[in-house]
Amino acid sequence: MTTMTTRELKEQLAGLQGQEVTLRGWIRNHRKQKGLGFIDFYDGTCFRNPQVVYDQTIPDFEAIQALRVGAAIRVTGRVVPSYRDPETPEIQASGIVLEGDSPEDYPLQPKRHTLEFLREIAYLRPRTRLFQAVFRVRSVAAMAIHTYFQDRGYVYVHTPLITGNDAEGAGNTFTVTTLPPQERDDPSKDFFGKPTSLAVTGQLEGETFAMAFSNIYTFGPTFRAENSNTKTHAAEFWMIEPEIAFCDLEQLMDLEEDFLKAIVATVMEKCPDELKFLDQYAGGGLLEKLTALKDSHFARITHEQAITILREAMEKGTEFKFEPVYGGDTAKEHEKYLTEEYFHSPVFIYDWPKEIKAFYMYQNEDGKTVRGVDLLVPGAGELMGGSQREHRYDLLEKRMDEMGVSKEDMYWYLNLRKFGTCVHAGFGMGFERLLIYLTGVENIRDVIPYYRTPMSCDF
Amino acid sequence: MTTMTTRELKEQLAGLQGQEVTLRGWIRNHRKQKGLGFIDFYDGTCFRNPQVVYDQTIPDFEAIQALRVGAAIRVTGRVVPSYRDPETPEIQASGIVLEGDSPEDYPLQPKRHTLEFLREIAYLRPRTRLFQAVFRVRSVAAMAIHTYFQDRGYVYVHTPLITGNDAEGAGNTFTVTTLPPQERDDPSKDFFGKPTSLAVTGQLEGETFAMAFSNIYTFGPTFRAENSNTKTHAAEFWMIEPEIAFCDLEQLMDLEEDFLKAIVATVMEKCPDELKFLDQYAGGGLLEKLTALKDSHFARITHEQAITILREAMEKGTEFKFEPVYGGDTAKEHEKYLTEEYFHSPVFIYDWPKEIKAFYMYQNEDGKTVRGVDLLVPGAGELMGGSQREHRYDLLEKRMDEMGVSKEDMYWYLNLRKFGTCVHAGFGMGFERLLIYLTGVENIRDVIPYYRTPMSCDF
Repeated sequence: MTTMTTRELKEQLAGLQGQEVTLRGWIRNHRKQKGLGFIDFYDGTCFRNPQVVYDQTIPDFEAIQALRVGAAIRVTGRVVPSYRDPETPEIQASGIVLEGDSPEDYPLQPKRHTLEFLREIAYLRPRTRLFQAVFRVRSVAAMAIHTYFQDRGYVYVHTPLITGNDAEGAGNTFTVTTLPPQERDDPSKDFFGKPTSLAVTGQLEGETFAMAFSNIYTFGPTFRAENSNTKTHAAEFWMIEPEIAFCDLEQLMDLEEDFLKAIVATVMEKCPDELKFLDQYAGGGLLEKLTALKDSHFARITHEQAITILREAMEKGTEFKFEPVYGGDTAKEHEKYLTEEYFHSPVFIYDWPKEIKAFYMYQNEDGKTVRGVDLLVPGAGELMGGSQREHRYDLLEKRMDEMGVSKEDMYWYLNLRKFGTCVHAGFGMGFERLLIYLTGVENIRDVIPYYRTPMSCDF
Repeated sequence: MTTMTTRELKEQLAGLQGQEVTLRGWIRNHRKQKGLGFIDFYDGTCFRNPQVVYDQTIPDFEAIQALRVGAAIRVTGRVVPSYRDPETPEIQASGIVLEGDSPEDYPLQPKRHTLEFLREIAYLRPRTRLFQAVFRVRSVAAMAIHTYFQDRGYVYVHTPLITGNDAEGAGNTFTVTTLPPQERDDPSKDFFGKPTSLAVTGQLEGETFAMAFSNIYTFGPTFRAENSNTKTHAAEFWMIEPEIAFCDLEQLMDLEEDFLKAIVATVMEKCPDELKFLDQYAGGGLLEKLTALKDSHFARITHEQAITILREAMEKGTEFKFEPVYGGDTAKEHEKYLTEEYFHSPVFIYDWPKEIKAFYMYQNEDGKTVRGVDLLVPGAGELMGGSQREHRYDLLEKRMDEMGVSKEDMYWYLNLRKFGTCVHAGFGMGFERLLIYLTGVENIRDVIPYYRTPMSCDF
């Protein structure tokens, strides 16, 4: 008799036929017939859960028939062939022991619950099929990202979360303080002796490490105090920010394309059951979308070309709410048209008007555009944003002045351009945005264990 | 001619002998002789750096001899056998191009700098040999931890950083707010509509996921607003917190021992050059210490036994500054005696007096002790702290009342004991404490890219 997880059971299923095993986990559903019972059993280690069958020969048959949904149990029994599906294990139980009871009013009764209801019981929702799939995909995707970079020699860098820099001049940051309210107007008395906030990016510190290790990546939490209640915004989320020395914009796009395809392929390989469930949950189309991405060629166009395509479409009758303008930002409807109707593939848009991009992007010779690049993906919009960085001291200094970025505070960032500067580039990807894409789940609140949004910080 | 990294060069060294390659990186040192030059070249992808040799036949010989330390260069040349060491690549350069210059007063001249000085230029220190070793070990150890848990089916969980819980009643937390100072006495107007702070642990949320996935781990930043300036305290650090359902204290100790040995083994395997350097830097003893740990058997004693051993030692003449007391905490000197003089191995101390441990630990039948366990390691002190959790509703509720933990705020944590509760356990390990142990570097400020300590939040 071996105690094992359902994951081990599934992996060793062929060899375990007819053997006795012991499993420990929970009851998801319990159907009773006269003299028989069927328990949908799970322990969360595997998405394909065994069915536990018992009959009147089991000790304490009546107590067992009274077991409720949500209870923790220990099951001992023989592995037998399943009638439903040869890959789904079935256990003919010889003994079932209650480890932890569950009340009649256990909130997760076996029926479909709304996502809104499940958010209210976020501490229980990982027990549902949907969130078992979502959070396993989250874990597998995180590992796929680490593996991708580590296999290629990238150094994982933990950039700081508490920062004295107001990077990107984002403004919408959370203040970090230990001062009592009445003393908060004197930051010199604060824990760090100055005003500090939660980081909105690790890129700038990431660059300092790329100038030492050539290839680095960050993967950590990031914070935005934006007061926007949308499906895609959270105040706390995770970001991946690789930074590569001796890399230009073209090579950056190569990396982004290869990276995204590799992550999608790994998740498809490691989570087939989860993705199949999510595909059905989303009403189909998820697996098709992911397969298409893996096999697609990502289009590459300049911002100017993008606007030209959009304006031509407009002239031919496509209706846009916002007019596509040379020198202006693109709207969601434009991104949708380019990816889903024009190219039918992911699209890199590069060489953006400098006015609408950050100070650190490499300035093109035209004096108007910078080597920024956004990756737009069908069904998800912008998934990654990157750029070749301005590595020339004089040009960066000028741009910092123009855009009001403090050279005093950021002397170290500017100095990178004085001490062995080189062409370099990097991108950022919001992890939750990737997960929305990978799972087909639409709301960022449902791909984060415990979401933080305006007026909401529970658990 | 292939452009490659020094890592690729080292990996393919045998096959590349006599071939022409191109490398891009920086000058660490430049020694000149009449008609000859030697460049210590690095790009940070590999700790074993090639030497670049050139002579008068190279184009622009004089300009090349003027190249300064810190400059970024592109080197083309033939791979030739090294006289110094067959595993260290040597390049006979046919061309060297300056990519980014470096001034005469570049701070990292080739001499030994103090750690204090290097902290002041923390944005440049990853370029030094020492920090190339430290931060590569940091990255490799992080990956080893992910791999350990993922290989065993654990789900990686991102627990929230901004929290409304004052978990463990720690007190020393950072407040997170978006209110201007004059409005900060009304948290209902704040971003989340209530007081929030930075998390000191992810354990409690981790437990909610262990009750769904059985085996989970966290790996993320953690914050303490402790006003202590020691070598081992930082305000922001990374923690690993696995949580395992159907696991008791004995099994937890098995996991901790296996886990630590596996991480040490992986780092020794993947970073031999870095560890050799660090061993020399620390004056020897590091490799010996790590090898001993891998092969040791970890002792397991109760807190009571530990005190008995310590008191007997005292009676036999060992001098302690603090008297070891039954029911009291142990001091650093006691830990040192137990690991380094008595057992000569890591030591688990378990079954601690309940008064000095957290509310969530499993209460033993004696009414006095709880199933907490600290792992002490020779030369590092406490490395991990864990416990079997109190999974019985009534007993947890009573303990929360006794210790003043709010049942209203923590209803969800208590409820886990109502909805299918089970024996479970977990531990926490400070990642930087592990790194201090792995690298032999003594100060936590030197194993974090950008440290945050009282009055210090730079870069």
